[in-house]
Amino acid sequence: MTETQLKQNKALRDAPIGVFDSGVGGLTVVREIIRQIPNEKIIYFGDTARVPYGSKSRETVTRFSEQIVRFLRTFQVKTIVVACNTVSAYAMETLEQDCDIPIIEVVRPGARTAISATRNGRIGVIGTEATIGSQIYTRYIQELNRKVSIYGKACPLFVPLVEEGLLEDPVTDEIARRYLTELIDTGIDTLILGCTHYPLIRSTLGRIMGDEVTLVNPAYETAMELRRLLEVHDMLCQTPPTLGSNRYQFYVSDKADKFIRFANSIIKYGILSAKTINIEAY
Amino acid sequence: MTETQLKQNKALRDAPIGVFDSGVGGLTVVREIIRQIPNEKIIYFGDTARVPYGSKSRETVTRFSEQIVRFLRTFQVKTIVVACNTVSAYAMETLEQDCDIPIIEVVRPGARTAISATRNGRIGVIGTEATIGSQIYTRYIQELNRKVSIYGKACPLFVPLVEEGLLEDPVTDEIARRYLTELIDTGIDTLILGCTHYPLIRSTLGRIMGDEVTLVNPAYETAMELRRLLEVHDMLCQTPPTLGSNRYQFYVSDKADKFIRFANSIIKYGILSAKTINIEAY
Repeated sequence: MTETQLKQNKALRDAPIGVFDSGVGGLTVVREIIRQIPNEKIIYFGDTARVPYGSKSRETVTRFSEQIVRFLRTFQVKTIVVACNTVSAYAMETLEQDCDIPIIEVVRPGARTAISATRNGRIGVIGTEATIGSQIYTRYIQELNRKVSIYGKACPLFVPLVEEGLLEDPVTDEIARRYLTELIDTGIDTLILGCTHYPLIRSTLGRIMGDEVTLVNPAYETAMELRRLLEVHDMLCQTPPTLGSNRYQFYVSDKADKFIRFANSIIKYGILSAKTINIEAY
Repeated sequence: MTETQLKQNKALRDAPIGVFDSGVGGLTVVREIIRQIPNEKIIYFGDTARVPYGSKSRETVTRFSEQIVRFLRTFQVKTIVVACNTVSAYAMETLEQDCDIPIIEVVRPGARTAISATRNGRIGVIGTEATIGSQIYTRYIQELNRKVSIYGKACPLFVPLVEEGLLEDPVTDEIARRYLTELIDTGIDTLILGCTHYPLIRSTLGRIMGDEVTLVNPAYETAMELRRLLEVHDMLCQTPPTLGSNRYQFYVSDKADKFIRFANSIIKYGILSAKTINIEAY
């Protein structure tokens, strides 16, 4: 390998990873990435001016996502993680067509984990109206194993309840009971948390579903897949973070202060700043 | 008056009124306009791609509103009604500066009605985080009567609960009880529904507040003010609607089908179509 090539490879390895979501939910994926590959630099974008995505159409979600990918690419990111199930369900084909760097999403990793976890071949999926309506989990799971039965349920009030901080609350309990009763009745033994907000109410969901049901958080497997992808392409960052380095940068389209407060409750890292940008200009 | 002037005046009288909101809530204002001045034509825009506004910043809400006003003006509207408390709280100054046609908002009419209604000088206001945080009702009410005490309470979960159709539901009851308890304790005798979604859960709110408390829906007084404004400027439409005329036109930025279903539950008019447009292009 020539010296130029070595330098190019090092620059690529040192490049940041772009991660995005409609808001704060994607931080549950960032949390896993930090745990599993702590050397990596991350540029995070949360579309807080246009959140939520889960009740919007394929066309709108795709247009918003394309703007975000254009924004993230201004940082010369080496790869992009779509940390949002709704974008994963609606926009991947378009994003992959437009992009010459690898893009990872959260649905395939979640589907794979659920297939490994189920013993009785009955898997439940909860998510936004968009994710459930798209039947994307059903499609991916059945591509891997046609014998599995999948039961989906849209839970549109979970995101506002989480955003209001009602993580352990009788109201969240009551709403969760309504959404989940029909899933319990199907006899599933595995439940995919098909929205990156839902790990934040994991204990409520676990209590209602009972010990017999395994809850799958696609964030864990997504971070694993990211690690494998970087390894295969020799793009893992080899440089340990130095004190004071700006390893994690956060951008939002609105209300940076509120985002910072929420972010610090998810990632125990001491996030001090987030910058507001006009995403519609990208 | 010359014949040209007469023709110009007739064209102005026959011009439509523009009405907008972040989503469907503004239809409670449209409903009042239709009741009070049924001859008028209406162009309605609901920003369903970027709803909700109530948790977003002044800058973002103002930018979104400016785009909408530009869109509505392409229809040569004779006046614009801001049927959204959050926009009324954040963006009026900017919108009025940019615009040479009259713009009516919902806060001043609500403030006036509440002052007429109160007997003990204690008025409560419920609304989005943005509306309550801006203290706009407090400012307008105290401009009219400094002796009145105002108690505000943000109710961020009401909009998602209404959008999910939980209009009469134990969960909405429980959430309303939490939000309203501190207002009941202040001894208010008048409560302003400071968000155009809230009239849709009026019976729940009335039950919790009790018969002693008057609920003020600013939509009624807003339609009255619109009527007065059109009268003063000799702009009231004199032409009764003809059968099959396209009197009410509805535009949204996303999910026209969902909007139509909701709209028909608010306005008993038989809304058959709504057109989706890309508001970011304005």
